[in-house]
Amino acid sequence: MPRETPMPKGTRDLLPEEMALREEIIGKIKMVFERYGFLQMETPAVESWEVLAAKGAGGPEILKETYNFEDKGGRRIGLRYDLTVPLARFIAMNPNIPLPFKRYQIGRVWRYGDIAKGRSREFWQADIDVVGSDSMLADAEVIACASDAFVSLGFEKFLIRINSRKILSALMKAVEIKEEKIMDVLRAIDKLEKVGVDGVKKELYEKIPNEKIDKILELVESKGEPEEVLEEVGKFIKNIKEGVEGVNELRELISFLREMKIEERIKIDLSLARGLDYYTGPIFEVFVSKEIGSLAGGGRYDRMIGLFLGRNVPATGISLGIERFVEVMRKEERVGSGVFVANVNKEAMKECVGIARKLRDEGIRASFDLRGRSLTKQFEYANSLKIPFVIIVGPKEIKEGKLKIRNFSTGEELSKNIGEIVNFLKNMQK
Amino acid sequence: MPRETPMPKGTRDLLPEEMALREEIIGKIKMVFERYGFLQMETPAVESWEVLAAKGAGGPEILKETYNFEDKGGRRIGLRYDLTVPLARFIAMNPNIPLPFKRYQIGRVWRYGDIAKGRSREFWQADIDVVGSDSMLADAEVIACASDAFVSLGFEKFLIRINSRKILSALMKAVEIKEEKIMDVLRAIDKLEKVGVDGVKKELYEKIPNEKIDKILELVESKGEPEEVLEEVGKFIKNIKEGVEGVNELRELISFLREMKIEERIKIDLSLARGLDYYTGPIFEVFVSKEIGSLAGGGRYDRMIGLFLGRNVPATGISLGIERFVEVMRKEERVGSGVFVANVNKEAMKECVGIARKLRDEGIRASFDLRGRSLTKQFEYANSLKIPFVIIVGPKEIKEGKLKIRNFSTGEELSKNIGEIVNFLKNMQK
Repeated sequence: MPRETPMPKGTRDLLPEEMALREEIIGKIKMVFERYGFLQMETPAVESWEVLAAKGAGGPEILKETYNFEDKGGRRIGLRYDLTVPLARFIAMNPNIPLPFKRYQIGRVWRYGDIAKGRSREFWQADIDVVGSDSMLADAEVIACASDAFVSLGFEKFLIRINSRKILSALMKAVEIKEEKIMDVLRAIDKLEKVGVDGVKKELYEKIPNEKIDKILELVESKGEPEEVLEEVGKFIKNIKEGVEGVNELRELISFLREMKIEERIKIDLSLARGLDYYTGPIFEVFVSKEIGSLAGGGRYDRMIGLFLGRNVPATGISLGIERFVEVMRKEERVGSGVFVANVNKEAMKECVGIARKLRDEGIRASFDLRGRSLTKQFEYANSLKIPFVIIVGPKEIKEGKLKIRNFSTGEELSKNIGEIVNFLKNMQK
Repeated sequence: MPRETPMPKGTRDLLPEEMALREEIIGKIKMVFERYGFLQMETPAVESWEVLAAKGAGGPEILKETYNFEDKGGRRIGLRYDLTVPLARFIAMNPNIPLPFKRYQIGRVWRYGDIAKGRSREFWQADIDVVGSDSMLADAEVIACASDAFVSLGFEKFLIRINSRKILSALMKAVEIKEEKIMDVLRAIDKLEKVGVDGVKKELYEKIPNEKIDKILELVESKGEPEEVLEEVGKFIKNIKEGVEGVNELRELISFLREMKIEERIKIDLSLARGLDYYTGPIFEVFVSKEIGSLAGGGRYDRMIGLFLGRNVPATGISLGIERFVEVMRKEERVGSGVFVANVNKEAMKECVGIARKLRDEGIRASFDLRGRSLTKQFEYANSLKIPFVIIVGPKEIKEGKLKIRNFSTGEELSKNIGEIVNFLKNMQK
């Protein structure tokens, strides 16, 4: 056993307690996705390098972090770094699928990032996407569905920040930022929430004339009702076609979100930029709090499928980071479930097997001793697994047909026959 | 788009219909696993090469089929080829975990096998293992749990074939097969069901003296009640310690399986050998039919964890092949669920959004038009997704507060208010 590096760096095992929480989270998210009519799909973990590295897909930054290798036939393949590029590849291969195609996918992705920052190299995403609709109604569906998923997970306060790549692009044109500086400016603005106005100014004053920065920041900082913010920025970019389009799209999107009863969660935030290159229209993020940050993000990408198919198919989607939810929700104390059927001696062991059979047939989670251990050791074991109840089986109990059932946390002990125990535990399991 | 090889060979996409079946299968299997007190765990898709290639783990044959590559730091890593070796690595890294550790894991594994035979290079396994018990009760738990999983999936007739590596090894000693020929003989015997007695003889007569072959085949072919078969083979190997142990273990195992009420599914089959090197005791397979073959297999491996930990920890487990279940169960006709809220014109579109909101809030799966299509086109779309119901929303319906709901397969149309529709669909979804 190579003790220093038994596991590849940036990977880890998920123990039962974390796994149970994760499964609960995924179960709730799935239920909401399906309620919105999204259908589940799965793509392989490996994709051909031509697909992953296609220009306009994930982009060069992400490719540096992509595991890749040659297969036996000498073809280069890699582990998927997101679930969106594989979806685009799928649509290109199945151009006759009924549109709009509303799919969800929950699965692992791999990015060979810097683990010094505590990042995992293997993590789960839960994505919904609507392919084949250029209507803002599709973006509204995606946003409303994500919002409902957060509600179903018990989040009360969260904010959906919305912006538009078209508006951002028009703003850059309006203050005449040179093409090659645009990404610098957007990245700096994206940090507004984190570093504040002065931080952004500091970063940009060296590169861009001060008065341009000030004008952008004034607009980008504007607060207020969505319509007010759009009104203000709309005036500034009214001569740029792309900008007018962006403003009109967000107006329409907001009106649909009002119809969907989630307008109180919405904020137009012109500082939102999002990292990926491929967005073409509205972009959005679900922001929980300053400490926690964003747990979901996405946007419209009308040109990515075209890379693979040769003609554009509009699409929009959002991605939820499962690990982030697990992190945030882990704090809650969790108890085990089911019952441990303990024997007082070896003769009672077989009886335990029969009792467990009856309980399991009723859908009750039951375990018993597999090592011939003493009653005390059996209790310790059940306790270490946080199993809340233990049934004690000995010759006396067998003879009388009454078993003792003990609640581990309260110490309370009851004497019941097997039928009563089944009912008791079934009620507990609900 | 590289049209010839858009996906790595041996991989494929899982479309919604297949995915729904797969999720249903996994859901039922999980429920049974949990009822038996197995807890879910997950390990990374990638493992270090030292772990995957450890002597006594998967063995050299499987390593030839293992995807592997160097990570940035120059360390060799590979995609897991099963879920058992990662479990052994986990136990070695966490030697203080309470034992027995009963875990289940459901996930992808990768094997770079020959796709000419229709094999996938990426497939799912569902494994249960009991680590830290040398009792036959642990093997019985694993077998009974797998059996219940098959029952929960609707399988009525299936057979659990059981053998023992110790008995096989003693048989080889009894007829004095040379060490280097043992694997040849076992592999040949394993094909008994497939090629018949004459086939096995043909394969072995060149290599091994005929009378030895005949004696082995006579024993291996013996049919009858488990006790009879064990009695007969027991006589033949009564002077070989390992063989006596093997017979006694299977006797004990059978008695536990009787206690667990699954003895009628059990057959002692001395021709069962199983491919993997690492088994040390009972081995077993769940056999459905001649056409379908085995859908699950496993056994006891008391020495594998020792490879990593330096001291042995006994373990036993079984692995279910998810793809095989999907294949077998795919034939059943499946219908979609939920409702499509169709608009008769653009004015009714917003109304549809509000109606969908109400339905979704009640947990009903609802979709609506996202492309501004005609009513006919909307019907066609809903139909292509096998959505069983459609609600029709137009100015007349809105004014009267009564919506039409149509059953696609019967053509039946009812007029109901929204509350009635909710109740109607909720009853349907049950």
